Amino acid sequence: MPQDPGSPARKRSDARKNRDRILDAARSAFADPDADVSLAEISRRAGVGMATLYRNFRGRKELLEAVYASEADSVCEAAADAVGSATPGLALRAWLRRCFAFAATKKHIAPELLAHANRDSARAVFHDSRTRILAAGSPLFEAAQRAHQVRDDLTLEQVLDMLVRIATVNGSDAYQAPMLETVLDGLALPSDKA
Amino acid sequence: MPQDPGSPARKRSDARKNRDRILDAARSAFADPDADVSLAEISRRAGVGMATLYRNFRGRKELLEAVYASEADSVCEAAADAVGSATPGLALRAWLRRCFAFAATKKHIAPELLAHANRDSARAVFHDSRTRILAAGSPLFEAAQRAHQVRDDLTLEQVLDMLVRIATVNGSDAYQAPMLETVLDGLALPSDKA
Repeated sequence: MPQDPGSPARKRSDARKNRDRILDAARSAFADPDADVSLAEISRRAGVGMATLYRNFRGRKELLEAVYASEADSVCEAAADAVGSATPGLALRAWLRRCFAFAATKKHIAPELLAHANRDSARAVFHDSRTRILAAGSPLFEAAQRAHQVRDDLTLEQVLDMLVRIATVNGSDAYQAPMLETVLDGLALPSDKA
Repeated sequence: MPQDPGSPARKRSDARKNRDRILDAARSAFADPDADVSLAEISRRAGVGMATLYRNFRGRKELLEAVYASEADSVCEAAADAVGSATPGLALRAWLRRCFAFAATKKHIAPELLAHANRDSARAVFHDSRTRILAAGSPLFEAAQRAHQVRDDLTLEQVLDMLVRIATVNGSDAYQAPMLETVLDGLALPSDKA
């Protein structure tokens, strides 16, 4: 039965869609270094009014933090989805690529959040995301270790610390790409080249 | 024939020794995160008076920059010494370890220099050191490439950018060490393990 457009369930669903649209628009705007990333531009890209934007996010800082947290969510979901797919080493390799892309997002968002007067709330978001991503990735990492498909002299935490730093190297994606490959190969993960 | 203690040559030699002593004392003081790194402490460690210290270095900033530049010099000398020793891949591996240790020095010194009012002069020192180190290491890197003992999809510049970032990971030397090994193995350099 189609929902009555005025029903509470329909309103919740619309509100959720608006929030997701704003987050999507913000994510793509912040990922483009040449884009105008004003809130007005983000509401235009999302196809919602400024009032709707402000109903969802008190301001620019809250929006940036929400973009960051939702990206972290999708990294965690990717880890859950990867468990049991392919070999443990290939699953870990694919997931670490996803983590590297996330670290590139952080590179764009973090400086603005840390420059904000209340940097503690940004730090809390970063810390919380890191904890969740480590927890989500641990089963993948441990499976690869049990299968001897990853080197055993470092932890997932060390691997992620390394990737996060490399993602901050100045240069294009093409400049960074072989650095990621070097680390993945150095971890002795099986090659995913065709 | 021993030099007359008052001769110009002897004076130049003493001045040089004092400068080197101060640099050595400063280097070890700055490398110890728990040490008191006041100029007074550095002159005490070097066994010279404050007047001698100030004759050599106008202030703390000039001393820090000189420590950094002299470390870069020794990285360059290590590259020149390594050419032709061992196999090209092993020579490169050993030299990249030296570069990583240098990057750790930078981690301690750079924040203070960049926080200084005149950060342009620090940037010039960093840029100049980077250029010299790249030039000094290129023959080693190219020899390893010709011998197919290093992967061929990235340049020495990319390798060094990666190592410099990894050296800034928070944590002890023991925490960072396997990250360096991961990169060296990922570069497909021959193992130097016994």
